[in-house]
Amino acid sequence: MSLTRVHNFAISLDGFGTGEPQSLEEPFGHAGERLHEWMFATRWWNENVGEPGGTTGVDDAIARRHQPGIGAEIMGANKFGPPGWHEDPEWKGWWGENPPFHSPTFVMTHHTREPIEMQGGTTFHFRDASPAEVLEEARAAADGQDVRLGGGATVIRDFLAAGLVDHLHAVVVPILLGRGVRLWDGLEGLESDYEIESVASPSGVTHLTLTRTR
Amino acid sequence: MSLTRVHNFAISLDGFGTGEPQSLEEPFGHAGERLHEWMFATRWWNENVGEPGGTTGVDDAIARRHQPGIGAEIMGANKFGPPGWHEDPEWKGWWGENPPFHSPTFVMTHHTREPIEMQGGTTFHFRDASPAEVLEEARAAADGQDVRLGGGATVIRDFLAAGLVDHLHAVVVPILLGRGVRLWDGLEGLESDYEIESVASPSGVTHLTLTRTR
Ligand SMILES: NC(=O)c1ccc[n+]([C@@H]2O[C@H](COP(=O)([O-])OP(=O)(O)OC[C@H]3O[C@@H](n4cnc5c(N)ncnc54)[C@H](OP(=O)(O)O)[C@@H]3O)[C@@H](O)[C@H]2O)c1
Ligand SMILES: NC(=O)c1ccc[n+]([C@@H]2O[C@H](COP(=O)([O-])OP(=O)(O)OC[C@H]3O[C@@H](n4cnc5c(N)ncnc54)[C@H](OP(=O)(O)O)[C@@H]3O)[C@@H](O)[C@H]2O)c1
Repeated sequence: MSLTRVHNFAISLDGFGTGEPQSLEEPFGHAGERLHEWMFATRWWNENVGEPGGTTGVDDAIARRHQPGIGAEIMGANKFGPPGWHEDPEWKGWWGENPPFHSPTFVMTHHTREPIEMQGGTTFHFRDASPAEVLEEARAAADGQDVRLGGGATVIRDFLAAGLVDHLHAVVVPILLGRGVRLWDGLEGLESDYEIESVASPSGVTHLTLTRTR
Repeated sequence: MSLTRVHNFAISLDGFGTGEPQSLEEPFGHAGERLHEWMFATRWWNENVGEPGGTTGVDDAIARRHQPGIGAEIMGANKFGPPGWHEDPEWKGWWGENPPFHSPTFVMTHHTREPIEMQGGTTFHFRDASPAEVLEEARAAADGQDVRLGGGATVIRDFLAAGLVDHLHAVVVPILLGRGVRLWDGLEGLESDYEIESVASPSGVTHLTLTRTR
């Protein structure tokens, strides 16, 4: 069975998945890189960017679950680009010519455009449709593998509310952002569908995993 | 030096310290007892209520830090009683004739009344004053010992914002309440004054401790 999975989604202690305002210079707003420093310290990250070294403990082990078994990605318009990206016909995402998705990648947006084929197996498809519809299409494109929901917070929240997420890994970083976009808003009672596991890492972050049980 | 300490303050995964609406029948609103089941399972809790048994692991060890060294308590009006308690001249709190504070206990409220002396060392004092003023008075009453800040979320948040908290122990319970009163609102950058430690318990809750470093 093909699952819908969220990996390495970082939130502050007060629940924000990004700071504000989002911009070309500061994709995460006032959060800067602080939500992801735990990840940049892992060996997995270093391997991906071609650097030596990195930690090999619990952060690394969990972070590595990101890629195996994934056949397609879904992301929100605000992950794909800064405010106004759709006015730039040349915008192809933040990730250069060879984005790290290596699979069909569905961008949920009210501003659709023609698909963009990148190097390394990533093709961006732009969809103005419901979470269930986009997931159905992504699942078909994943060809028996799982679909990764890449964020941001708005899109993950919408998929959670629609009951479409099988596995969610969130990383609680011990900072208070005070403002931005919250992951958990409007999800009262979510725990009844999931087994929730929490593990604190010596690095200071806490890994939460929600595994669907029904 | 006399410290200001918060212990065993329970919040949901989405950051709520109580549900809603608060009432005489349901002090925590729709949260019911779910925020405190981890605590009721400890040996410490059972000892306090005169029952046998209870767990003796990390939840118990941390929960026990609640009492030692405390010489006074501060709480908010909504912890002291349900909405409208001040219209009842007989209201003396939820805790019966011998409340578990055993010390001078300062209730922050816009509806002050004469002090109420209870059994076992608890006297309730009602104060309409700033956090700093009430803390100064509680500290004097604590006679060299520490002051416990008992909650709810509103009062703790106000003391945090005023830079008056030395130690905060919050317990993250894996439920999503969706509504109620949030602990962390409006506290951007709080982490710069604290060392933050996180430990996940096998019971499913995560203990956060914030220790003031400057
Ligand atoms: N914390 C992490 O680990 C992490 C991970 C990934 C990204 N991020 C960050 O999160 C931020 C983005 O998150 P976000 O919550 O602001 O936004 P988002 O979830 O990336 O995107 C939301 C936007 O997608 C479009 N959209 C969503 N559902 C749609 C639907 N059904 N039909 C059509 N369009 C739809 C809408 O944009 P339009 O109406 O404009 O088209 C909507 O405003 C960025 O700063 C990104 O860098 C963080
Ligand atoms: N999660 C936990 O572990 C935990 C622990 C303790 C309590 N609780 C629960 O939390 C809830 C109460 O929390 P809450 O956030 O609603 O309220 P709260 O913090 O208990 O009390 C806030 C109220 O105190 C009064 N107040 C605060 N500062 C004041 C000031 N400077 N001067 C005068 N009055 C002041 C105001 O009431 P008035 O204007 O009405 O006087 C204010 O609305 C209850 O449900 C309680 O059972 C939870």
